[in-house]
Amino acid sequence: MTHLGTLYILSAPSGAGKTSLVRALLAEDQQVRVSVSHTTRAMRVGEVEGQDYNFVSHDEFNAMIEAGQFLEFADVFGNKYGTSQAWVIEQLKQGVDVILEIDWQGAAQVRHLMPEAVCIFILPPSRDTLLQRLNARGQDSAEVIAGRMAEAVSEMSHYPEFDYLIVNDDFATALRDLQSVFVAQRLRQSSQQVRYASLLTELLS
Amino acid sequence: MTHLGTLYILSAPSGAGKTSLVRALLAEDQQVRVSVSHTTRAMRVGEVEGQDYNFVSHDEFNAMIEAGQFLEFADVFGNKYGTSQAWVIEQLKQGVDVILEIDWQGAAQVRHLMPEAVCIFILPPSRDTLLQRLNARGQDSAEVIAGRMAEAVSEMSHYPEFDYLIVNDDFATALRDLQSVFVAQRLRQSSQQVRYASLLTELLS
Repeated sequence: MTHLGTLYILSAPSGAGKTSLVRALLAEDQQVRVSVSHTTRAMRVGEVEGQDYNFVSHDEFNAMIEAGQFLEFADVFGNKYGTSQAWVIEQLKQGVDVILEIDWQGAAQVRHLMPEAVCIFILPPSRDTLLQRLNARGQDSAEVIAGRMAEAVSEMSHYPEFDYLIVNDDFATALRDLQSVFVAQRLRQSSQQVRYASLLTELLS
Repeated sequence: MTHLGTLYILSAPSGAGKTSLVRALLAEDQQVRVSVSHTTRAMRVGEVEGQDYNFVSHDEFNAMIEAGQFLEFADVFGNKYGTSQAWVIEQLKQGVDVILEIDWQGAAQVRHLMPEAVCIFILPPSRDTLLQRLNARGQDSAEVIAGRMAEAVSEMSHYPEFDYLIVNDDFATALRDLQSVFVAQRLRQSSQQVRYASLLTELLS
């Protein structure tokens, strides 16, 4: 099934700078959206339904699981979070690229259902930089930092499951790298053939 | 066999603007080289051995064919032209990307020997633009122009055999598209894993 849009999975350890990169990408590219997850957790002050999350009850969430409506879902401290497959496919059909910001476990679930997803992993430029970023406020105990580092290393160990690796050393370069993956993907023959169907007919007549 | 460099095949009908795009790409990217062909035709005034072509005798060329040293070769009006596989592989091993500017027949030969080659086809933005470019000097007969157009249509009919399609409407956009394919290709996990081997060891230790 070829859609004009592409599904992207972006994963990274905390401290790799993924969120800033995605924000900068979205600011310059109107053809990309980030998926809004469904969650069973309570709405917090300042959050907007349908923008930060789609807030649903546990029963609604479980019914969606039963109906096979999630591309991926996870349980985090008793609350569920998931990505609606219907919404993603609707975007792709409209030619919009969709980004899922999920961890390696979510990525594995999505790949199983949509193997055409393009998987990008973002890495920090060094262990020292990562340590600094994991201790940005300088207020955490050595144990807390060590725990975060162990989690980051565990996440990073899954880099071989991803199609692209971007090292976020210089931000502008990493952003250009990310944009290049999106641009190149749109140039694939299977997409361009649909996008330029009438031009191709004209040229080959 | 994973090399750091990538082999690119660029094909296009005459008049698509391929040569200008490649020149602009090379000017900004030191990691890319265009393959220099071997040929049996005589050196012309102003041509430089090893730069425009590697000039060889018919016997030398035939010996190279026998030895399976060509990635592709063709006979054009009694003169042979070919791409040395050894030179290409040497560049790729050094991390240099190599561009072959060849037609769909050469592309098919190369793909057979090196299926990992990335194949890009460049299209003009309209039939009218193509006609204008094929008649740039305005001095050719209708028959000559019609012959060139038929040849262009024949070449373009092979676009489905290519991985990427770039429409050369706005030059700057087409150049950015081409550059994005090269940048994205370098970000592939298999290449990055080699390029960043020591970083990955450090991060995962």
